[in-house]
Amino acid sequence: MTDPVPRGFRFAGVAAGIKKNGAADVALVVSDRPCNAAAVFTRNAFPAAPVQYDRDLLAERPAGLRGAAINSGCANACTGEGGLADAAAMAADAEAAAGLPPRSVVVMSTGVIGPRLPMAKIAAGLAAAAAQLAPDGWDAAARAIMTTDTRPKTAFRQVDGIRLFGMAKGAGMIHPNMATMLAAVVTDAEIAPAALDARLRQATAASFNSISIDGDTSTNDTLLVLANGAAGPVDADRFAAALTDLCADLARQIVRDGEGATKFITIAVQGATSDDDARRAAKAVANSPLVKTAFYGGDANWGRILAAVGYSGAAVDPGRADLWIEGQPGRLQLVAAGQPLAYSEELATAIFQGADIRVTVELGLAAGRATVWTCDLSHAYVDINGSYRT
Amino acid sequence: MTDPVPRGFRFAGVAAGIKKNGAADVALVVSDRPCNAAAVFTRNAFPAAPVQYDRDLLAERPAGLRGAAINSGCANACTGEGGLADAAAMAADAEAAAGLPPRSVVVMSTGVIGPRLPMAKIAAGLAAAAAQLAPDGWDAAARAIMTTDTRPKTAFRQVDGIRLFGMAKGAGMIHPNMATMLAAVVTDAEIAPAALDARLRQATAASFNSISIDGDTSTNDTLLVLANGAAGPVDADRFAAALTDLCADLARQIVRDGEGATKFITIAVQGATSDDDARRAAKAVANSPLVKTAFYGGDANWGRILAAVGYSGAAVDPGRADLWIEGQPGRLQLVAAGQPLAYSEELATAIFQGADIRVTVELGLAAGRATVWTCDLSHAYVDINGSYRT
Repeated sequence: MTDPVPRGFRFAGVAAGIKKNGAADVALVVSDRPCNAAAVFTRNAFPAAPVQYDRDLLAERPAGLRGAAINSGCANACTGEGGLADAAAMAADAEAAAGLPPRSVVVMSTGVIGPRLPMAKIAAGLAAAAAQLAPDGWDAAARAIMTTDTRPKTAFRQVDGIRLFGMAKGAGMIHPNMATMLAAVVTDAEIAPAALDARLRQATAASFNSISIDGDTSTNDTLLVLANGAAGPVDADRFAAALTDLCADLARQIVRDGEGATKFITIAVQGATSDDDARRAAKAVANSPLVKTAFYGGDANWGRILAAVGYSGAAVDPGRADLWIEGQPGRLQLVAAGQPLAYSEELATAIFQGADIRVTVELGLAAGRATVWTCDLSHAYVDINGSYRT
Repeated sequence: MTDPVPRGFRFAGVAAGIKKNGAADVALVVSDRPCNAAAVFTRNAFPAAPVQYDRDLLAERPAGLRGAAINSGCANACTGEGGLADAAAMAADAEAAAGLPPRSVVVMSTGVIGPRLPMAKIAAGLAAAAAQLAPDGWDAAARAIMTTDTRPKTAFRQVDGIRLFGMAKGAGMIHPNMATMLAAVVTDAEIAPAALDARLRQATAASFNSISIDGDTSTNDTLLVLANGAAGPVDADRFAAALTDLCADLARQIVRDGEGATKFITIAVQGATSDDDARRAAKAVANSPLVKTAFYGGDANWGRILAAVGYSGAAVDPGRADLWIEGQPGRLQLVAAGQPLAYSEELATAIFQGADIRVTVELGLAAGRATVWTCDLSHAYVDINGSYRT
């Protein structure tokens, strides 16, 4: 038995021929009643056309949205004025296909940056998707937004009779700065747009903004939440906790499916002068190609971890830093107050060779802390990205 | 016929058993007369012990140095108080071996971060090197400082009868923030310490600080210049030009020998609001794993270049950006004033598949410009760094 879908939402995913391999590439999400909406978008200075379209739409009507149309296979980014017109046309196509009012559908795109959207395929795909909309279409929708993902990412939560469902995609170009590449959350909670927006930003910081696969911030990052109110009002704090939990679940699924990833790595930095400084240090470790290849190779080359902390820009006193690594075989302290400790190379190697590794850096300065999730850097990442468009 | 070595300098390189593979790993550079010296060091907050030792030494006596002792195979970084004592002992060993006064020799180390220096091997190696010092020992010295380098990096320049020689090492953990991993330049010019320091910083900005292999800033980066005055005074501007040219030569050699590199890539950003902003944008492109794997795969996925500029933090107006790529087969404009142009996919692919590629991004805002040199990210980089210590 699967989790119950939020009341009043229907989903569909179809293959519209945008992807060369014939896989599903158009998803549609529709609410039977108007939704309050909130979204966070990429901070990339070249935002994709759908990001620009959605920003305007949400500013204009945060309380009257009916759904989202999403395609994979083409990002509609770096496409100039023509791309903006395509995004608007895609929204209009979705509204027409699903019988919704104008300016009620959010659009998202993901895939290759540069090419224009194939609009005839998009329109046909949206028409086909509209004909298949159903409450149990959520899995098909989640599959249709995949690019290099090897599996769909979905999550369900319930709180006080309210239901939440979320889906996300992303496996590369993942270093979200506001949100991951694409994620949509729908809920039947009744919650005002301003409160929804505040709770979404809170959830983002502790989920999508805490992961990194390759340090590349996409042009298309979008996290959307639609709340149609079908289940009535909800306690805002309890809703926020469930939303954060659901977003963190999706974010970890993205890391576990990182391009070429063979390991899941947690970087915890504590004792920093601020949470921001801790995050800066943790992200430097998470993004270091040298750290990531050492994890891939199972080589306990721990000096690279401190080297990355050292160039992160975070305030550091070398004489106060502690370092631990932890995994299936146990926990090992490698550095205490800046002094390297004698340690079992055998245990260190066993930890690094495991599939789930936790690194803890204690800076010993104050109470700032952050946790970042990342994956290793493997031959497969190079394979995938050396020939992404072919 | 080789270039003439600066007057009064002798060099040696020997195998002291620090590296497991038995390759040369101890180098010694000695001047017959006292040198004025200047150096730039890593900004990593965990500076290696030799960096800390040298900083003190140069502050104490910028005008009385006699040489440098360098080992590869062990970085003496993240080694605490014991490592500091080892660095001082290594300097004293070199001074004793070469019959030099105390506190006259700079030390540098490169290799694995974490382990302590094998001091008995270091002392024996320095004694052996001292016995072999000779003007034509420069090639042996340059080979003894290599780690994952596949070839030594050396360069000669002459200006107004003055001679300069430089050697450098570095193939990974290369994203210098002040200097590359290790480089030493010797000259027989007569130039005061303050002027030497100013000219060295100027040269660094346009050379070692303009390259990146993997975005990792080492704990050990050191660039040292020793000027023994044997050839008399020099015009400071002409000397600076020769020094900059020599440093840029060494820096490009490092990129061409980047770990696993198959291509040499020049990223030029112009039209930025400042040179700093241009450098920020160029470095983001140079460090992007997605851009670097696309170059490796010969896939003209140019959207990734603009995406990296977009997240670099540099001021950008998407409607003003131009993009060109250039290589053996020709030059191609891909974007004009933010609008993608129709282009020959065949020519774009041919350019990306070449071994020497130039990317130019025009931001159209002001006159800021920077050029950064980098390489691609290949399977071999993952091989090398997945098992560096084994």
